[in-house]
Amino acid sequence: MRMYDIIQKKRDGGELSEAEIRWFIEKYVQGEIPDYQVAALCMAIYFRGMNVEETAALTFAVRDSGDCLDFSEIHGLRVDKHSTGGVGDKTSLVVTPIVASLGVKVAKMSGRGLGHTGGTIDKLEAIPGFRIDLPVDEFKEIVNRVGIAIVGQNAELAPADKLLYALRDVTATVDSLPLIVSSIMGKKLAADDDCIVLDVKTGSGSFMKTLEKSRELAERMVAIGKRAGKRMRALITDMDIPLGFAIGNSLEVVEAVETLKGNGPADLTELCIALAAHILNLAEKGDYETCEKLAKRAIADGSGLRTFADMVEAQGGDKNWILHPENFPTAKFSYSVKAKESGYITHVDTESYGVASLLLGAGRNTKEDVIDPTAGIYLRAKTGDFVNEGDEIAVLYSEKQSGFAAAAEKLLAATEICKEAPEKQPLILDIVE
Amino acid sequence: MRMYDIIQKKRDGGELSEAEIRWFIEKYVQGEIPDYQVAALCMAIYFRGMNVEETAALTFAVRDSGDCLDFSEIHGLRVDKHSTGGVGDKTSLVVTPIVASLGVKVAKMSGRGLGHTGGTIDKLEAIPGFRIDLPVDEFKEIVNRVGIAIVGQNAELAPADKLLYALRDVTATVDSLPLIVSSIMGKKLAADDDCIVLDVKTGSGSFMKTLEKSRELAERMVAIGKRAGKRMRALITDMDIPLGFAIGNSLEVVEAVETLKGNGPADLTELCIALAAHILNLAEKGDYETCEKLAKRAIADGSGLRTFADMVEAQGGDKNWILHPENFPTAKFSYSVKAKESGYITHVDTESYGVASLLLGAGRNTKEDVIDPTAGIYLRAKTGDFVNEGDEIAVLYSEKQSGFAAAAEKLLAATEICKEAPEKQPLILDIVE
Repeated sequence: MRMYDIIQKKRDGGELSEAEIRWFIEKYVQGEIPDYQVAALCMAIYFRGMNVEETAALTFAVRDSGDCLDFSEIHGLRVDKHSTGGVGDKTSLVVTPIVASLGVKVAKMSGRGLGHTGGTIDKLEAIPGFRIDLPVDEFKEIVNRVGIAIVGQNAELAPADKLLYALRDVTATVDSLPLIVSSIMGKKLAADDDCIVLDVKTGSGSFMKTLEKSRELAERMVAIGKRAGKRMRALITDMDIPLGFAIGNSLEVVEAVETLKGNGPADLTELCIALAAHILNLAEKGDYETCEKLAKRAIADGSGLRTFADMVEAQGGDKNWILHPENFPTAKFSYSVKAKESGYITHVDTESYGVASLLLGAGRNTKEDVIDPTAGIYLRAKTGDFVNEGDEIAVLYSEKQSGFAAAAEKLLAATEICKEAPEKQPLILDIVE
Repeated sequence: MRMYDIIQKKRDGGELSEAEIRWFIEKYVQGEIPDYQVAALCMAIYFRGMNVEETAALTFAVRDSGDCLDFSEIHGLRVDKHSTGGVGDKTSLVVTPIVASLGVKVAKMSGRGLGHTGGTIDKLEAIPGFRIDLPVDEFKEIVNRVGIAIVGQNAELAPADKLLYALRDVTATVDSLPLIVSSIMGKKLAADDDCIVLDVKTGSGSFMKTLEKSRELAERMVAIGKRAGKRMRALITDMDIPLGFAIGNSLEVVEAVETLKGNGPADLTELCIALAAHILNLAEKGDYETCEKLAKRAIADGSGLRTFADMVEAQGGDKNWILHPENFPTAKFSYSVKAKESGYITHVDTESYGVASLLLGAGRNTKEDVIDPTAGIYLRAKTGDFVNEGDEIAVLYSEKQSGFAAAAEKLLAATEICKEAPEKQPLILDIVE
């Protein structure tokens, strides 16, 4: 086989065979195919796409490029939940303890923030002492004992994705359906779960800006997960508005804890209950309505919160911070962003909100950047709310004052205020299974 | 400026600015932009194309990436002729001595064979002693004294093209109009000529398989050459049939010499006279009919042949080989290819003929291959001819017998024989100016 022929075939709109796809992924990981040929292929895939067969083959080749985990020592059904990334999306911190408290196992590997979106691992690291690297045996032991553990992505898992993602990131080939699918699912399938629920975001704060593209992504990922023998479901949910009020790592942990206590924002609570109910339903804990009741009860009776606190303790953090979130320090500086006119907030560019939180120190511009866990944004008004000129619409938090002006400007520029109230959009737009 | 933004802009169908194009070529030559980003850009250009403005900017950036030659010490109008590459295309060896004998100057840089097509430099090297590397001063002196010199491409000329071509060659991005144009014209314009006549080949033996694509290429190159202040003309000529009967280096030199003596094949003679007449016409030696007569006379009176012989002598070869081409040695082995059925040859896949000659040793599969100057094919029948089963349709020549079976098979498979005579196609299909 020759890489040239594979590039040319895809360039000309041909269908790559499973053998061709496996060969190039294997040789690329072995360092036998140069980046420039893979870059040309990624761009050809960007233009020509891949059908389901090819995408599945690519996903499985990525999965098989490194170690696959064996969770057979974990007792009971193992479930996972994955979000395609949003702003203020702390659902994992709420959903996974809820379902774990109800008897399914969560042996979760999570990622760091990517671009304008946050990452579960960065959020958990806002809890002092929390260890995101656990030896495999300890990881399994905690999952068996507590029901849940969340760690960072294993370096030996799907190494082809690491190489491919780094290359796509600098060659403008990130935004390609089959490449996104194989990246997400290649990693997910290398873990040893029985059920996977995907939260595919859509709208201005997500990577997929249109419902159509989000649905396509959801359908493709569900199809491929099923081929790999997983129980799959995807929710397509709104990310045209930030989720909840908190954006930034410790701010989001506190809001997640409040949600587990039953005091969370309505939108976040609604989505977390739905995601938990779908996971429980996939795990055969009852019909959807029963599972929804179970999830609500786990909030009402505090069992979700207790499970989260137990996990934090098991992974080295102080559970009192979870039970008493007022322990979380606030940032040294804060800055009030005020509406410049009166009217309804009709639309926000949620990606810009995410970028504003990056400017405050809540995320990374380069891999080397150190995150300020207290940095972020607390929203006082969201899409649909009426504000008067001079009303506080957000508070910015940071350990340094230097980012405030630019972040406030970005936020205001991203916030449309009009006389007419906007139509309310549903939070959950579609379910793919 | 960031290379990422340039890739993304082209990927999304945008028009690159002259500043962006100049920047990336400059940084690429300086080694500051990695191959993988340029590969991704080339593939995006393959899909999105470039308009005339962008193509001109790219061509001029390639031209300016290294030294530009100064031929002001050469007296008189300087002309060049470039073929986009074909099989059996030895026109340069005939046309340039003819026009030089008529008072225009030919200070020519030529390339080696590329893929299935031959190269003028490889052909000239079949003449023992012929030096394709000349110091600049000696080169100019020969052009002034003899009227013509032909050397290999200067390494300092258009280095961006060398890098780009090597990358395109392994990333399936050779076949892109703006990239072809900038490669050919970037080099041509770095030389200091006044008039350029392009022979744009079309059909099965050329890189452009359709008349439409060939015309597009011709128009684009003529437009860009004119922008650079050159007098330009392009002939679109048939390469669906090999030109002449000889394919292979010394076989082609002998056929070129016979053509200069007036004994050449009809198609080759016709095309050489036309190309020479167009060059002379561009160089204001008279109207086209006058120039055609001048070119024919340079064959009839032997002045073209004498100029060729003088050039060979000036560049270190033995002029007696040119005046008495029977001096050229023939290959150690020959092999007769016979028709397997009776009928008219209705079509040949000329590229396969070129590949067959490669198999015999007439070209290179890798840069390191050493050419066998005596290797090649002498055709006994061409498209339109009637052959009887068992008739010799070609003789293969090589210093080794190992390639004969595969080459013969390739040749026969590429030769269509039918009961009906094909329609005769014109040799010169269009003229672009």
